[in-house]
Amino acid sequence: MTEPVVNRPPSRAPSETMPYVHKVGIPPKQDILKEFKSGVKETFFADDPLRQFKDQPRSRKLMLVIQSVFPILDWGRHYSLQKFKGDIIAGLTIASLCIPQDIGYAKLAKLDPQYGLYSSFVPPLIYAFMGSSRDIAIGPVAVVSLLLGSLLQEEIDPTENPTDYRRLAFTATFFAGVTQATLGFFRLGFLIDFLSHAAIVGFMAGAAVTIALQQLKGLLGIKKFTQNTDIVSVMKSVWGTVHHGWNWQTILIGVSFLAILLLAKHIAKKNPKYFWVPAITPLLSVIIATFLVYITRADNHGVAIVKHIKKGVNPSSAKEIFFTGDYLGKGFKIGVVSGMVALTEAVAIARTFATMKDYQIDGNKEMVALGTMNMIGSLTSCYIATGSFSRSAVNYMSGCNTAVSNIVMSIVVLLTLLFITPLFKYTPNAILASIIISAVVGLFDINAMILIWKIDKFDFLACLGAFFGVVFVSVEIGLLIAVSISFAKILLQVTRPRTAILGKLPRTSVYRNIQQYPEALKIPGVLIIRVDSAIYFSNSNYVKERILRWLADEEEYLKENNQSRIEFLIVEMSPVTDIDTSGIHALEELHRALEKKDIRLVLANPGAIVMDKLHASQFVNLIGEDKIFLTVTDAVLTCAPKLEQA
Amino acid sequence: MTEPVVNRPPSRAPSETMPYVHKVGIPPKQDILKEFKSGVKETFFADDPLRQFKDQPRSRKLMLVIQSVFPILDWGRHYSLQKFKGDIIAGLTIASLCIPQDIGYAKLAKLDPQYGLYSSFVPPLIYAFMGSSRDIAIGPVAVVSLLLGSLLQEEIDPTENPTDYRRLAFTATFFAGVTQATLGFFRLGFLIDFLSHAAIVGFMAGAAVTIALQQLKGLLGIKKFTQNTDIVSVMKSVWGTVHHGWNWQTILIGVSFLAILLLAKHIAKKNPKYFWVPAITPLLSVIIATFLVYITRADNHGVAIVKHIKKGVNPSSAKEIFFTGDYLGKGFKIGVVSGMVALTEAVAIARTFATMKDYQIDGNKEMVALGTMNMIGSLTSCYIATGSFSRSAVNYMSGCNTAVSNIVMSIVVLLTLLFITPLFKYTPNAILASIIISAVVGLFDINAMILIWKIDKFDFLACLGAFFGVVFVSVEIGLLIAVSISFAKILLQVTRPRTAILGKLPRTSVYRNIQQYPEALKIPGVLIIRVDSAIYFSNSNYVKERILRWLADEEEYLKENNQSRIEFLIVEMSPVTDIDTSGIHALEELHRALEKKDIRLVLANPGAIVMDKLHASQFVNLIGEDKIFLTVTDAVLTCAPKLEQA
Repeated sequence: MTEPVVNRPPSRAPSETMPYVHKVGIPPKQDILKEFKSGVKETFFADDPLRQFKDQPRSRKLMLVIQSVFPILDWGRHYSLQKFKGDIIAGLTIASLCIPQDIGYAKLAKLDPQYGLYSSFVPPLIYAFMGSSRDIAIGPVAVVSLLLGSLLQEEIDPTENPTDYRRLAFTATFFAGVTQATLGFFRLGFLIDFLSHAAIVGFMAGAAVTIALQQLKGLLGIKKFTQNTDIVSVMKSVWGTVHHGWNWQTILIGVSFLAILLLAKHIAKKNPKYFWVPAITPLLSVIIATFLVYITRADNHGVAIVKHIKKGVNPSSAKEIFFTGDYLGKGFKIGVVSGMVALTEAVAIARTFATMKDYQIDGNKEMVALGTMNMIGSLTSCYIATGSFSRSAVNYMSGCNTAVSNIVMSIVVLLTLLFITPLFKYTPNAILASIIISAVVGLFDINAMILIWKIDKFDFLACLGAFFGVVFVSVEIGLLIAVSISFAKILLQVTRPRTAILGKLPRTSVYRNIQQYPEALKIPGVLIIRVDSAIYFSNSNYVKERILRWLADEEEYLKENNQSRIEFLIVEMSPVTDIDTSGIHALEELHRALEKKDIRLVLANPGAIVMDKLHASQFVNLIGEDKIFLTVTDAVLTCAPKLEQA
Repeated sequence: MTEPVVNRPPSRAPSETMPYVHKVGIPPKQDILKEFKSGVKETFFADDPLRQFKDQPRSRKLMLVIQSVFPILDWGRHYSLQKFKGDIIAGLTIASLCIPQDIGYAKLAKLDPQYGLYSSFVPPLIYAFMGSSRDIAIGPVAVVSLLLGSLLQEEIDPTENPTDYRRLAFTATFFAGVTQATLGFFRLGFLIDFLSHAAIVGFMAGAAVTIALQQLKGLLGIKKFTQNTDIVSVMKSVWGTVHHGWNWQTILIGVSFLAILLLAKHIAKKNPKYFWVPAITPLLSVIIATFLVYITRADNHGVAIVKHIKKGVNPSSAKEIFFTGDYLGKGFKIGVVSGMVALTEAVAIARTFATMKDYQIDGNKEMVALGTMNMIGSLTSCYIATGSFSRSAVNYMSGCNTAVSNIVMSIVVLLTLLFITPLFKYTPNAILASIIISAVVGLFDINAMILIWKIDKFDFLACLGAFFGVVFVSVEIGLLIAVSISFAKILLQVTRPRTAILGKLPRTSVYRNIQQYPEALKIPGVLIIRVDSAIYFSNSNYVKERILRWLADEEEYLKENNQSRIEFLIVEMSPVTDIDTSGIHALEELHRALEKKDIRLVLANPGAIVMDKLHASQFVNLIGEDKIFLTVTDAVLTCAPKLEQA
């Protein structure tokens, strides 16, 4: 690949006044197949997943394939009691956190409470065998539950037709899994990179507010509550029931435990040593609140309680999935959307903790694991599970070492399902509402928002758009806004690349943007313009016209000040990483337009690919090979002497 | 704007061994409003259309506004008899070319022949007053007629329900106009830049083949012909009727005149002086063929003739447009699609000829003109008109000077409608088919395809995709493929930016890609990586991981060769024109990953905006201000001595 080629001799003899000028290199020709192969590799196998297979015997390769599908076979061999100690503590901690959350999140998805627990049993088990993150905690999460609930509700009313609603939920879960696994298998994982960080921050914050608002129902003991999630409808519901409808006993339980939960969070924030305090407070609160309601029989005074959670392990739901009929398409659509959102969250978590512990995550393999776990989940009465940010953080803080902590959690949830669910009968809904509120508080990341504001105003706009979309309209609209803004940003980026006028920095031979370096000097008779992007069909016209506009501005200025006219236009091509046919056309048109004004077009430092295409299209012959230089300095040195003679 | 700022003093004292090192500039802070304003300006007013309004009194401004809507008021004042001479000759020439084409194209759109003529009367007139291109020839064109015909046919059968079909055609034309004018008015004209040149070439070539195949019906005198446009159905239709269905008289007329028409084209190609030969041959052929059929009464022997073209000027069709009901939405959709395609063609033509004659076209103003002309057209029984490539070329070659040639053509068409249409009664359909075939031959641009193949293989794939989509499936599918491939290319471009390892060119202080310059030398202990794109959410993860992979490869190589380990990783940021919050995160993660390996992260030449954001996000403090250099040379000079001491 780096085989040296003999450079062609320079086309003009170096004059005595000229310094050494290095030729612009043309890279060794690659054959098409090789070029295509390397293109495909960078696009789909950027992380070089097959690196370890190189130079291995066949039997070892097979072993490696199996290991790469089930990483547990790899790390399991080095598993030790020492590691298990960390994992069991972490597993028990996240189990205590997930049980009350699961029951609450199932309510967000408008499903019966046991489905939340089911989803914390099967999916984490599958993940432990297939996933490569050591820190992620798998289970239902608030945002996906809310999203799934609102999307499903638009199709089927959960109170009027609970059976079909549940079946559609499993269908959506199945297709969410299929989507995730497919994206991973075809190595299209980079598609989730198209959701910008800013849009996600805004969307999450909006979802947090919406979820918290939804909890006012449970927290205030309101019976008739709106089905909409926008802030206006919710606040109307809340204020409309202020005189008759609020239940003071419920409020007392809810608000006091909410205060305790938030205090616990605050303690951990002040002193990370006490991270376990907010981790176990929810379960303790549930136990205490349940006990209080049981002994005071507050449920007879209007305090809403869970009443009934079905006991026993996940029943099969394979036959409940709609594989035919009208709901198949609907379930598919809902599954794709919520599957993608779930994926975004899980991959972000996996990446964050992998960076913190310095190990590698293969995003695409991770997606296959998540997809498989949701597909199997949908057959065993689970709804969409993914990585939970709050529980993963607790998992990490409690010292988890491997995915075994997920197995431990999963077993605890199984035991709960088998033996303990009846005890939740008297659990007041208000305590679940408080737990959810305290859990989603963390999704509202005000610091991230401030940072976004500081760094990029356009990003902040995207963030606000997604936030207000979720809060004032609906989760789907917020998501749509987030995606649209992200795409708009990408499209703007490619249509309107930046250009800059360069000047020479005093005491150096370096040419830089005169807006960044106001002390940089322009060279008389020469205009140097840098184009800051590949020139493609999407921006070729703009680039051409922008260069001509810079030229017109400069000419006007020179005329007004009676200075010598421009004779050379140097285009600094360093940032122009690629060019296509439209780009070549634009350059040709630029050359023709400049010719009419008797100005020479000069190129500085075209890259390998650009140089290749300039040759292929004969553009080099059009402007002359001696008009292409390695650096702006070389170009100016060759142009400027002529100016002095003129 | 270029007000000089005092550079902060360098944070470290220059040592005696170090050469002069210029500080990396931080541009003067702009306030948000100004930044936002300049962003909006570059995006929507890149061509600075208000430049001429600057420093003008109010009355003059009003005049300028009116002039900018009706450019005829501007150039009309300088109009001369000399110019009129050129325009009248050009106008008569394109009129003789357009009349037979119009009748044929109306058939492609599955409308009666007079609608083609109507569309060559009103729209060119409106355009002459509002348009700014001096060379474009307005009227119905083959590709848009075909597209409109196939889209409309999917909704309404033109033979079963011709009235509703026609009404839907006007509805689509109205909304095509609305789309075009809206895009122009809101200065969203850059949206059409998202169709790549390669995709258009492929699409046009495919359309040319499809249109030519459709003409086999007229050329061979086949009565029962398929409604589909794909090559398989058409060839089945053709071969299925070979024994009974072909009409030899028709074939004789069609093929012999086709030979004459192609010969005429060939003559003009060999000698551009005779450009008028293919321009007048069609009309002459029509006259001769009509006369021949009339005297031999060949229509009694199975030669299909036009039979009837309604005489008289365009009737009003304002009441025929569907402004309510089911067809409103369908008409809207069809209008948007065909309006965009028509726009792409017209703007490309206007730009091409503007470059050839060196005048400026305001794409957005052009779109308003085209949109208005189609809206008014839809009220006067016209279907979508746009710029025709072949007729515009003839217009240009005949020496047109202004849009007056369109007015001349329009008047000739009017006279034709008023007096001559009955004479077309005996015109054989076969001659129209030959004229269309000879007209669309030019759309199949084999040279452009070869050039695309040479320059960019991926572009060629896009071209082929669009071509085969049109030929083997349908026009819509071809268009969809063209658009999808164009977008895929944009998305790939932003997700997978290039990176390169740099080395020092011998005898210079210039650092360049070692793949382009195999003679470039690596500096021991230092790895220099250039990132060739803005770092955004869409690529930040990839960039981070790619850099780490370059590092891993290099470390492995060094280890195998027992060379000294990497101590500094220099990221050349020159091509990194912008960075967003995700990009900053990626850099932070990169920094952390490098810290674990005891490698220093060094940045070279971050641009103005990037520098600003690195400061805003405190990243500069994280890696240390002394780790940011103006050039790679400076960075290496500062890093390398330390290495020698180590």
